[in-house]
Amino acid sequence: MTQPSSHVTAPLKDELDIVIPTIRNLDFLEQWRPFFQPYHLIIVQDGDPSKNILVPDGFDCELYNRNDVNRVLGPKSSCISFKDSACRCFGFLVSKYIFTIDDDCFNWKVAEDPSREEINALAQNVQNLLTPSTPFFFNTLYDPFREGVDFVRGYPFSLRGGVPTAISHGLWLNIPDYDAPTQLVKPLERNTRYVDAVLTIPKGTLFPMCGMNLAFDRELIGPAMYFGLMGDGQPIGRYDDMWAGWCAKVIYDHLRLGVKTGLPYIWHSKASNPFVILKKEYKGIYWQEDIIPFFQSVVLPKDCTTVQQCYLELSKLVKEKLSPVDPYFNKLGDAMVTWIEAWDLLNSPAQEAAAPVDGVKKN
Amino acid sequence: MTQPSSHVTAPLKDELDIVIPTIRNLDFLEQWRPFFQPYHLIIVQDGDPSKNILVPDGFDCELYNRNDVNRVLGPKSSCISFKDSACRCFGFLVSKYIFTIDDDCFNWKVAEDPSREEINALAQNVQNLLTPSTPFFFNTLYDPFREGVDFVRGYPFSLRGGVPTAISHGLWLNIPDYDAPTQLVKPLERNTRYVDAVLTIPKGTLFPMCGMNLAFDRELIGPAMYFGLMGDGQPIGRYDDMWAGWCAKVIYDHLRLGVKTGLPYIWHSKASNPFVILKKEYKGIYWQEDIIPFFQSVVLPKDCTTVQQCYLELSKLVKEKLSPVDPYFNKLGDAMVTWIEAWDLLNSPAQEAAAPVDGVKKN
Repeated sequence: MTQPSSHVTAPLKDELDIVIPTIRNLDFLEQWRPFFQPYHLIIVQDGDPSKNILVPDGFDCELYNRNDVNRVLGPKSSCISFKDSACRCFGFLVSKYIFTIDDDCFNWKVAEDPSREEINALAQNVQNLLTPSTPFFFNTLYDPFREGVDFVRGYPFSLRGGVPTAISHGLWLNIPDYDAPTQLVKPLERNTRYVDAVLTIPKGTLFPMCGMNLAFDRELIGPAMYFGLMGDGQPIGRYDDMWAGWCAKVIYDHLRLGVKTGLPYIWHSKASNPFVILKKEYKGIYWQEDIIPFFQSVVLPKDCTTVQQCYLELSKLVKEKLSPVDPYFNKLGDAMVTWIEAWDLLNSPAQEAAAPVDGVKKN
Repeated sequence: MTQPSSHVTAPLKDELDIVIPTIRNLDFLEQWRPFFQPYHLIIVQDGDPSKNILVPDGFDCELYNRNDVNRVLGPKSSCISFKDSACRCFGFLVSKYIFTIDDDCFNWKVAEDPSREEINALAQNVQNLLTPSTPFFFNTLYDPFREGVDFVRGYPFSLRGGVPTAISHGLWLNIPDYDAPTQLVKPLERNTRYVDAVLTIPKGTLFPMCGMNLAFDRELIGPAMYFGLMGDGQPIGRYDDMWAGWCAKVIYDHLRLGVKTGLPYIWHSKASNPFVILKKEYKGIYWQEDIIPFFQSVVLPKDCTTVQQCYLELSKLVKEKLSPVDPYFNKLGDAMVTWIEAWDLLNSPAQEAAAPVDGVKKN
C-alpha cells in the first residue's frame, strides 16, 4: 500500500540505498525529502568530474564522479558508460536493496493517488520486494500478497507460496515512456490512468524494464543489473535499462525469482525531445527485432546456479548470437565479463573487510 | 471503454448471443434490460425439463431444456453435463460471438465504475474481443489498443500488430471467485478494488478462467470452449470453466490467438456456501496439482492447424497423461471427442443450410 506523506515510514532504512545518476544539482530532492531523508543516497556524477554538484542540506549522501569510478575500478572502469544514465550501475556495486530513479528535477516528481495523497514510491517498491512473486500461473485478481486479495479458484495450492521478488518496476503518470517514433506520432498523449494494481510478469515473458522508478534486491539479482555500454563513444543510447531488464529476466526465470510491475507511480512531467532521442535509439529500434527473439530463445545450463555464472554464460551467447547483427555486441559481451569482474572485485569478502569503497561524502 | 447506461450501444447486435445456464426464473434480466435487450438470448435450462422458466417480457430469447438437448444431439448429448452450469456449453454450438454469464439474480448484478456509472459489461467485453491481443511481449501500460495508451519504449515494432483476441475474461467486484478453502478461511474478504486495466495473458502462461463474465469469438476458439463433464453423475463440479480455460489457452497459444483479462466488472453479491462447494470441488483441488503441470507441458503438433484438430489431439493427451490420476479423465477424454462430433454435427455447411437448430421461442 502506498503511504500518505503524513505517516512516512522508512522500511529497510539500513539496507537500502537510493542510486541517482546526474549531471546537475539535485535541488529536486527537496520535494522527496520526507521519503528519502532517512536513506543513504549514492549519486553517480556523469560527465565532467570537475563540476561541483550541489545536494540540499540534510541528506546522507555520497557522490562518485568519473575520477572516483576510475580510481575504484582501475582498468575495469571501462564497463561503466559515460554521458548516459547507464553510469548509474556503478552505484549498484554496493548495498543490499537498491532504489534508482532519474535525476531530472523538471522531469519527474512525487505523484498523487486518486485520493490526492502523495505517493511514497520508495515504500511501495519496498513492499513489492518484500512480498513474493507468482511467475508460474496468472492470478486474475493480480498480486495475491496485497491486503484484501488472495489466490482465486483454480490456482494450484502448491504454487501459492510464490518465489522471492528480485525486482519492483514502478510506473509513471503523465508523460508515458514512449520511444521516439511514438512520441513523434503522439506528441500530446499523456498517461492519466491510475491502475491500482501490482502484478508478477509471468515466467517466460519478456518486458520493457524502465529505469525511471525501479527497485531491486541486489543480493538476489544485482550482478545481472548491468546497464551496458551506452552514450559517449557507443553507437546506441536509451537501451541501458532495457538491456538490463532482458538479461535479468532470463536469469531470474532460470533461478526461479520474480519481478513485479505496476504500482507505485511517479509523475513524469517533461517529455524528451523526440528528435534528439531518435538519434540515440534508432539502432536499438532495428536491433531489438533480433535481440528479443534471442532472449526469448535463451536457455541457460542447469549447472549455472548463481547470477554471476548465468551472466557470464549469457555474455558468451550474446557474442555468439548477436555479433552477426553488429560488432557492437562483441564489445558489449566483453564489457559484461568486465562488469562481473568489477562486481567480484568490490564484493569479495576480503575486499569488504579491508577497504570500504568511498566516494566523496556530501553534507 | 465502458458505456454509461444513458448512452447504451449494442455492438455486434446481429452476431452476438448471450448464453445463460439456469434452473430458475430469469427476473434478474430486468436490471440488465438496457444492455441485453438488443441481443438474442440462449437459455440452457438445467435440471427438470418439465419446470417452466419465466423470462421477462421484451427479450428475444430461445430456451433449450434437457429434452431439446437430447433431441438435437441424439446420443452425442452425453457430452453435455446435467445439474451443473457446465450445461451452458450447449449454447455455444451456434452463433458467432458469445457472451455468457451465470443466472443467479441474487448472485450478481450490474456494477458501477468509480464515477458511479453503471458498467455495460457486454460492451466492454466486445471491445476487448474486437481489438488485438499482445501475448508475445508484456506492455507495462497494459492494453495498448485502449484509447490514450500505446506500446512503451523497448516494445519490438514487429509485434505491435498483435493477434486476434479469442476470449475476453471479465472480473467481479465484491465477492471474489475463491475456492472453498479460501472462502472458509476468509469469509469476510471482499474485492473492493476497481483496477482500471485490460491486459493480455502472455503466451505460455495458464490462468484460472471463470465463467461468470466471459465472452469469446466462437469462430476463432469455440470448439475448445467445452465445459467438460461436471455435476450430476460426475465426481467433480465447479471446474467446468477452469477446464475450458486451460484447454483453450494451450490451443490459442499454439494457433497464435489471444485472451484478455481485466475490465469489465460485474457485481457478485452472494457467496456460495463453502461447505457445499467444498464437496463439489475437493477432488479438483488434488487433481489440479497434476492437471496444471500437464497443461504447462503440452506441445501440440505443428500439423494441427484448426481448433478441432488441436482439441482432438488434446483429448488423446488427456487420456494418456491424466487417466493415471483418475479414471474420470478417460471418460472426460471421450466426452471431448463427442463434443467435437456434436460441434461438427451442428456446424457442417449441410446442417446449417438444411435444418436450423431450434429451441423453444420465448416471448
